[in-house]
Amino acid sequence: MSYFSNVQQIQYEGPNSQKDFSFRYYNPKEQVNGQTMEELLRFAVSYWHTFTAEGTDPFGQGTMLRPYNHLSGLDLAKARVEASFEFYEKLQVPFFCFHDVDIAPEGTSLAETNKNLDAIVAMIKDYMKTSKTKLLWNTANMFSHPRWVHGAGTSPNADVFAYAAAKVKKGLEVGKELGAQNYVFWGGREGYETLLNTDMKLELDNLARLFHMAVDYAKEIGFDAQFLIEPKPKEPTKHQYDYDVATALSFLQAYDLADSFKFNIEANHATLAGHTFEHELRVARIHGMLGSVDANQGDPLLGWDTDEFPTDLYSTTLAMYEIIKNGGLGRGGLNFDAKVRRGSFEAEDLFHAHIAGMDSFAIGAKVAQKLIDDKVLDEFVEDRYSSFKDGIGLEIVEGKADLKSLEQYALGLGEIANQSGRQERLRAIVNAYLLDVLR
Amino acid sequence: MSYFSNVQQIQYEGPNSQKDFSFRYYNPKEQVNGQTMEELLRFAVSYWHTFTAEGTDPFGQGTMLRPYNHLSGLDLAKARVEASFEFYEKLQVPFFCFHDVDIAPEGTSLAETNKNLDAIVAMIKDYMKTSKTKLLWNTANMFSHPRWVHGAGTSPNADVFAYAAAKVKKGLEVGKELGAQNYVFWGGREGYETLLNTDMKLELDNLARLFHMAVDYAKEIGFDAQFLIEPKPKEPTKHQYDYDVATALSFLQAYDLADSFKFNIEANHATLAGHTFEHELRVARIHGMLGSVDANQGDPLLGWDTDEFPTDLYSTTLAMYEIIKNGGLGRGGLNFDAKVRRGSFEAEDLFHAHIAGMDSFAIGAKVAQKLIDDKVLDEFVEDRYSSFKDGIGLEIVEGKADLKSLEQYALGLGEIANQSGRQERLRAIVNAYLLDVLR
Amino acid sequence: MSYFSNVQQIQYEGPNSQKDFSFRYYNPKEQVNGQTMEELLRFAVSYWHTFTAEGTDPFGQGTMLRPYNHLSGLDLAKARVEASFEFYEKLQVPFFCFHDVDIAPEGTSLAETNKNLDAIVAMIKDYMKTSKTKLLWNTANMFSHPRWVHGAGTSPNADVFAYAAAKVKKGLEVGKELGAQNYVFWGGREGYETLLNTDMKLELDNLARLFHMAVDYAKEIGFDAQFLIEPKPKEPTKHQYDYDVATALSFLQAYDLADSFKFNIEANHATLAGHTFEHELRVARIHGMLGSVDANQGDPLLGWDTDEFPTDLYSTTLAMYEIIKNGGLGRGGLNFDAKVRRGSFEAEDLFHAHIAGMDSFAIGAKVAQKLIDDKVLDEFVEDRYSSFKDGIGLEIVEGKADLKSLEQYALGLGEIANQSGRQERLRAIVNAYLLDVLR
Amino acid sequence: MSYFSNVQQIQYEGPNSQKDFSFRYYNPKEQVNGQTMEELLRFAVSYWHTFTAEGTDPFGQGTMLRPYNHLSGLDLAKARVEASFEFYEKLQVPFFCFHDVDIAPEGTSLAETNKNLDAIVAMIKDYMKTSKTKLLWNTANMFSHPRWVHGAGTSPNADVFAYAAAKVKKGLEVGKELGAQNYVFWGGREGYETLLNTDMKLELDNLARLFHMAVDYAKEIGFDAQFLIEPKPKEPTKHQYDYDVATALSFLQAYDLADSFKFNIEANHATLAGHTFEHELRVARIHGMLGSVDANQGDPLLGWDTDEFPTDLYSTTLAMYEIIKNGGLGRGGLNFDAKVRRGSFEAEDLFHAHIAGMDSFAIGAKVAQKLIDDKVLDEFVEDRYSSFKDGIGLEIVEGKADLKSLEQYALGLGEIANQSGRQERLRAIVNAYLLDVLR
Repeated sequence: MSYFSNVQQIQYEGPNSQKDFSFRYYNPKEQVNGQTMEELLRFAVSYWHTFTAEGTDPFGQGTMLRPYNHLSGLDLAKARVEASFEFYEKLQVPFFCFHDVDIAPEGTSLAETNKNLDAIVAMIKDYMKTSKTKLLWNTANMFSHPRWVHGAGTSPNADVFAYAAAKVKKGLEVGKELGAQNYVFWGGREGYETLLNTDMKLELDNLARLFHMAVDYAKEIGFDAQFLIEPKPKEPTKHQYDYDVATALSFLQAYDLADSFKFNIEANHATLAGHTFEHELRVARIHGMLGSVDANQGDPLLGWDTDEFPTDLYSTTLAMYEIIKNGGLGRGGLNFDAKVRRGSFEAEDLFHAHIAGMDSFAIGAKVAQKLIDDKVLDEFVEDRYSSFKDGIGLEIVEGKADLKSLEQYALGLGEIANQSGRQERLRAIVNAYLLDVLR
Repeated sequence: MSYFSNVQQIQYEGPNSQKDFSFRYYNPKEQVNGQTMEELLRFAVSYWHTFTAEGTDPFGQGTMLRPYNHLSGLDLAKARVEASFEFYEKLQVPFFCFHDVDIAPEGTSLAETNKNLDAIVAMIKDYMKTSKTKLLWNTANMFSHPRWVHGAGTSPNADVFAYAAAKVKKGLEVGKELGAQNYVFWGGREGYETLLNTDMKLELDNLARLFHMAVDYAKEIGFDAQFLIEPKPKEPTKHQYDYDVATALSFLQAYDLADSFKFNIEANHATLAGHTFEHELRVARIHGMLGSVDANQGDPLLGWDTDEFPTDLYSTTLAMYEIIKNGGLGRGGLNFDAKVRRGSFEAEDLFHAHIAGMDSFAIGAKVAQKLIDDKVLDEFVEDRYSSFKDGIGLEIVEGKADLKSLEQYALGLGEIANQSGRQERLRAIVNAYLLDVLR
Repeated sequence: MSYFSNVQQIQYEGPNSQKDFSFRYYNPKEQVNGQTMEELLRFAVSYWHTFTAEGTDPFGQGTMLRPYNHLSGLDLAKARVEASFEFYEKLQVPFFCFHDVDIAPEGTSLAETNKNLDAIVAMIKDYMKTSKTKLLWNTANMFSHPRWVHGAGTSPNADVFAYAAAKVKKGLEVGKELGAQNYVFWGGREGYETLLNTDMKLELDNLARLFHMAVDYAKEIGFDAQFLIEPKPKEPTKHQYDYDVATALSFLQAYDLADSFKFNIEANHATLAGHTFEHELRVARIHGMLGSVDANQGDPLLGWDTDEFPTDLYSTTLAMYEIIKNGGLGRGGLNFDAKVRRGSFEAEDLFHAHIAGMDSFAIGAKVAQKLIDDKVLDEFVEDRYSSFKDGIGLEIVEGKADLKSLEQYALGLGEIANQSGRQERLRAIVNAYLLDVLR
Repeated sequence: MSYFSNVQQIQYEGPNSQKDFSFRYYNPKEQVNGQTMEELLRFAVSYWHTFTAEGTDPFGQGTMLRPYNHLSGLDLAKARVEASFEFYEKLQVPFFCFHDVDIAPEGTSLAETNKNLDAIVAMIKDYMKTSKTKLLWNTANMFSHPRWVHGAGTSPNADVFAYAAAKVKKGLEVGKELGAQNYVFWGGREGYETLLNTDMKLELDNLARLFHMAVDYAKEIGFDAQFLIEPKPKEPTKHQYDYDVATALSFLQAYDLADSFKFNIEANHATLAGHTFEHELRVARIHGMLGSVDANQGDPLLGWDTDEFPTDLYSTTLAMYEIIKNGGLGRGGLNFDAKVRRGSFEAEDLFHAHIAGMDSFAIGAKVAQKLIDDKVLDEFVEDRYSSFKDGIGLEIVEGKADLKSLEQYALGLGEIANQSGRQERLRAIVNAYLLDVLR
């Protein structure tokens, strides 16, 4: 059967396309930076937002009209799998991502939950034999069930920690079974509600213990996925320990985990933490820690995780700039951790939204590539820091200067001349490149 | 001469005091936690806000009525020194803090600037011979002059870096000369305005180079002050590299500087970074990095650094809770990096504001101490995490568990029972302790 | 049967109380401002948060352990009614509030929904015969069901508008039946997600039409409740039309509704709109529009409606200051539109939380009353504006001055002397009053 | 003499231009919406940011390199006038705007200040005889001098009110003398720092009195400019009374001033108030109150007024959409109330920045016009609300329905079917129009 029978496979039709369902800008086989767009962008569909979520919000019930709404339990889970592969096929996305509970219902015991999971994993594996779509990453949801109310790896309850460990173990096994390229930790409840009742030191120690166990077990079973931490500052917690890239980096450094992890960076999490998306990508990049991306966008005037589909071309351009500079995402990809608005409740909106996101990143990739090819920013930056290429600057960089030698130098300086940072001009150039991309 | 002749030395008069200028709660010789308040709180006056600042804001000229407003140049600088020691004496504060340019005017060359500085430093040293007030910390202002427009240690201009090095060298020498207990780095311009023109990696490398040079030179001259980094997320920059404690910690770790530095934590900087004051103190404390405090408060509804005098007793209580748990501040102190409102322009307001701040921290210290003495929070926390004291919890903490053993354990669990976090009750208890403090 | 058998009726035990469940500060019969606390504060329990809500959040399932969790449908609804009156009795609160769907389940048709509602309303009415607890206000929930996805009175779908009208009609009838003292409109979905698809003018016109119909029908059936609008800026909508008091006032003025409505002001909604709680109360008060209060608090570092129980004594003091200055709340009250944290999932937490809130407002009332009795702020303010009591100031106020006469006067002025605003001093005084309240 | 000799008159060179100083998109004589771009956009240069400001910020001294930096007093003022008209000419902007103190230095008395102003106004008038550039609006700066510390029209000091009245009187006379098309009130200090010392009612009453006096005097002297209020929520005040369009509207309504005023809407002020720029424009438009625009942009991650030059094409497009729907701005214009970054301190940056802003609004105008011409959004909106065109919807709109008739109707409804709001699709369409604009 078909779940989305009124939508055909989406094709690249070019910028003049008037078709409701077509790519205008994403051309999977078009070359950008010596790769095809498909290879560079590595788009993934988020199972939870696209197939599992019902459109609830804190003040409202589900609104989503889905062809399997009448089902429940494992029947519902199976219908979603069927629908998902039809969806991947029609969108031609190379990857998908899921949490365990997205794909299979929890049972009344851990054993039953695992059994449910096994059934669906087997079904997915079967589908993957004939599908081109692979698993970018999977993870264990350790935040929705009431048992996680005070945390999973950071719970004050040792039983909960043990349960979390079991879930991670199963997650790693599922990842191996399905050939996942990464394994993600998003610590939705790994934080605190109030310091008044919190032993922050023990919680962080325990979180590190869980991560070490996971690294060890993956080695043991020969699961060679890249481990990823996904920073987020808050929500649902008052404060989440993986606040942003720098914070999570300090944690990995302190607990000797930096070699085993990279980051999965989400645009909306960046802005909730007070940073731009490109800032977080840059920080990860210069530390060699840029692993994968949750491609969405927030609303800068709203204080919660709106997880909107990415359509802001500035954001996609500057993100792709960092990604291309990083030499691509390696095993990572661009996962649409994005949900259609509660008012976009028709199944067609899922296609509209993914097309919008894929087109936006395709444009971003082309603009970024052209900026890089033309060395527009690179040359400006190189010139700007050129004083560190010789003379006193070179001495500084090479470690040959100290406060005394520099004071001597400085005493001989007259008024120092700086150069303009040219921010307004550089922004106008980015605009020109954006507008130029189709001409 | 007297600059504040209408205010006498401030005395502790007790909670029933009706005097305009008296401490109601700060009793320097009262014991808290086995120390006198004076020893525990180690209050400092910020020279810049109290004696140098004129009350300008981005839309307005100075408003402050000061007894030396008619002077200029070195005469003005000297009058401020005289006034400052009268002020310290009347407030009985044990410490003060300054940036170089707060105390002496810049000259037309670095040499002249240093000469001006030497003159005032000598004068201050002279005053200190007979004053009880000591130098908590000094620093070099590397953010106000136009030369720092693009940064100091992170400037793209090597000449500026050299100039910064010379300023730091002089700052260390001045600190040694005056017996400073700490040396602070606040990187007001060490960040970026736009990533479009920024080489973040080189800038961070250079910043670390400057810090290493400072550490080396301090050793060389036998200046044994504690080095402190003062995190702030933004303002005046779009993004400051020392965003918050965790971010600055990751920097110190990455550049092998963590042993040489601690943090100077400012309340208003914490909230600008999206954290509570007590959060930043806690993070620093559990990493052994809590050095000193800039005691002020922000306005949670305003997005800039309002630097208000601290009067929120919740904030002072929770801050003192962390500080007492830290075993005090060591060489650090509570520096009022706070400015009277632009509309509080009379000299008397300086006294009102400092009294308000000192009283607020005195109350906070007493409430915190009582919470600790009564083990109110400690017992709750200890009980909450007690499952890690034996059984499976102890195995986890002792490193004897792994994913397999924990899965085995978890498979045998029924529904896990958690305990309430009791946030509402704990907050009510804090209120009760606050209201109880004077009874 | 008893639903909360381990909690006895809460009594005032005074500040030294060590009992887990007692009022330390709220003494219902104590006089404040010539009334008993009970009469002044008019506390109300929110049915939805206390009896209906399950502790879900956007990332998690319900956690609340409630004695009726095993029931469903009308049985569940009835058990909640029973539990609610036991709760009111034990807390001795004089009022409760509800939305229609809080108390009775929706049916498969409007007629069935109304029938369910009638059954529960009859049951509540029966309980009210012997209870001292009255209905402060009721309202219709026009935001949770999927039909309201694009709004109720502002829906682009006329059928939805009609349905909303029917819900309001029923709500007014229920209010009359149960003797509600107010009827509240919170327009949770009355706003927009994107201007791209929105006819703002038509939506506002329609909203006004609905309000006029409600006013007319209330008159027709002799329901003399005070109509209230509850401003909120956003969430769940991107933008809600009743953004804040001033915005809603401009709407009421533009549509000739200002005489028929007052405001129900919520603390957390105020801060989400960028205002303090007391600001919103003040704006409503000086326009004669302060009707009732949703007594809670937000987290200033979180960008969503946390609806915490009010424990901040500054907030309760400044709120009570406005309320007492307003001559009390008339038909309004202090409704705890507040939810226990998701981690405070035990039934006892409901008592802890309400006790915390009631105590906090009791303290706030006493501090505010003392500030008013002692004219501490009033005298300062009167003196501050005294120049408008005679001379040129009086001419201005009496309308006898114009630009020409004022220019003449101004040309004769020398340098104008202003007075300090004394903000730091005033804050210290508020602290002193707070700490003094129990002595 | 020439102040900007290295920049020639800026010409439209088209999108392929490689010239540093040229318009790529702003073609003054190109037709958009039946007007030339020049007529539609009515660009204005802000005198204060462009000629007077020195690049200070709260932590730093001025950085701006300007050809008249060596001058002072009236000589400086005159040089700025000369430079300004050279700048207008080279940019071909049709308008400029100023505050009194931008153009002439304050004297030691009001009389001397007025005399200085007269001298410069005469000089400007002389220049205007041969320049094509006109005065869009002028105003009196009633926020920078210390006398305004507690407000101008809302000062607690009647002398200050009188002084403000005198300044407004002079401002109206200057406006008339120079043919200003509008007169703006931005109440930078018309708000409060703390409610503890504030009589909000008297302050608002007085502000209204000042506005009525201004309206009366303008009539008396035959100055027929449009009066404009410029909303801003905060900064420099804690709270500004003219918070946003809706708030200022409620004030104008309450004080019978709505017929005499329109709004001058600033993008950055909108976002500081929690709104999008287009939201504020829409609210003003549907109330017939859209007067003029301060064209800039803020940084969504910073909490202060960054006043950046507008380069975000989404913002310019959606703003121009509202403006074209409004039938243009009438007497208003697009005033660049925008400042080059402190790091963009070279005179050339002034050109880069204005070119960037003008090009951005030119693109925005073209995209908006095409969206309107193609009825892309209009048709969607019309269809979305079509249920109000007949049947029950028409009865509602025509006032023929009431709660009873609507309940009857609703009881007959089955499950209501809503339509998707299609937000993702609509955003993709806006992207397509943006990328299409040059093809």
